Amino acid sequence: MSPAITRAQQGEETRRNILRLAVDIASQRGLDALTIGDLAKEIGMSKSGLFAHFGSKEDLQIATIEAAEVMFGETIVLPACEAAPGLARLASLLEGYIRYLEDAVFLGGCFFSAVAAEFDDRPGRVRDRVIVSMRKWDDKIVSEIRNGIAAGEIPEDVAPEQLAFELEAIAPQANFNRRLLGDEQAFVRARSAIRSRLLSASTSKGKAIL
Amino acid sequence: MSPAITRAQQGEETRRNILRLAVDIASQRGLDALTIGDLAKEIGMSKSGLFAHFGSKEDLQIATIEAAEVMFGETIVLPACEAAPGLARLASLLEGYIRYLEDAVFLGGCFFSAVAAEFDDRPGRVRDRVIVSMRKWDDKIVSEIRNGIAAGEIPEDVAPEQLAFELEAIAPQANFNRRLLGDEQAFVRARSAIRSRLLSASTSKGKAIL
Repeated sequence: MSPAITRAQQGEETRRNILRLAVDIASQRGLDALTIGDLAKEIGMSKSGLFAHFGSKEDLQIATIEAAEVMFGETIVLPACEAAPGLARLASLLEGYIRYLEDAVFLGGCFFSAVAAEFDDRPGRVRDRVIVSMRKWDDKIVSEIRNGIAAGEIPEDVAPEQLAFELEAIAPQANFNRRLLGDEQAFVRARSAIRSRLLSASTSKGKAIL
Repeated sequence: MSPAITRAQQGEETRRNILRLAVDIASQRGLDALTIGDLAKEIGMSKSGLFAHFGSKEDLQIATIEAAEVMFGETIVLPACEAAPGLARLASLLEGYIRYLEDAVFLGGCFFSAVAAEFDDRPGRVRDRVIVSMRKWDDKIVSEIRNGIAAGEIPEDVAPEQLAFELEAIAPQANFNRRLLGDEQAFVRARSAIRSRLLSASTSKGKAIL
């Protein structure tokens, strides 16, 4: 392996480590708390060294959202793809999201909820990038509901967007109840809410899967 | 009326106007964006004039949460008290919250969702005050569900905290879908979700009320 490739790989790994820390910080204190100066100090790098990786604060914020999306995909979406399309995969995606919130308890909870609340009223590139991530999640949920309808697991008169809206509302609420109000039953309630909503939107074929 | 009383009243009115603006700013950009300097500039007051009303940034943040709670109470809770305790009042509280989110479309949407996301991981007096507000809302919802059970409008096997959790999740999700994703169907979906959840948790006496 040539030294040039090794250096490029090292640069890639450094960038990944920086972004992992950036995701943690942003999930706890928001993307605005993410300054190149503070991040450099936390990592023990020079500010100019960090600038070499990210040109501006905005570029760093966008790279952080992209990194969070990759982590979200690896932790939740990829494992769910082992389940069959339709209701099984839908249930796995929703359970994966709950588990991710549970496991992340010391790292600031839901990155996307925090960032969505922070940027919902602030037009610009960062907000646009947050929207792309949120839409991907919504598209995923809606498309598995459609797969479920096509497979006869969900009745045909169910409106996919309405069911998706109701299912997607549950995990963020559990996140807040756990983190802000300290409700230890939050994830138990979320799982119960998801299960009863899925059961009420299933045919007998669907119910057998759940 | 003595001049002293008039001056005290003027001070009270100034304070109220400052806090109304502070609630708007915080609902759009968060409580951290609320500095005494910026707020003074926006109002056209001196920094020291503003300091006379609020001793510190933290005091200003807490006073802003209290002001938002009063506005929330006047807009949502008080009108709902005209409805009979139980399912009717519960439905009125939930509809009032949706209407408040719809009407506030240009002022940053839901103050409490924004502030909850901002402070959920930051211990201190501000977070504690946010929690007090959130609990009041939850207590209100749970207590009307209990009233509904007592009145025979909601079946006795319904767990009040579980139903409250599911109902409370809906409006914040609509707020984000409207404001962040620009979904114009968000509040239609929220109303439909609330109605079907209430219907599924009602006796025949309850269904007649909805």
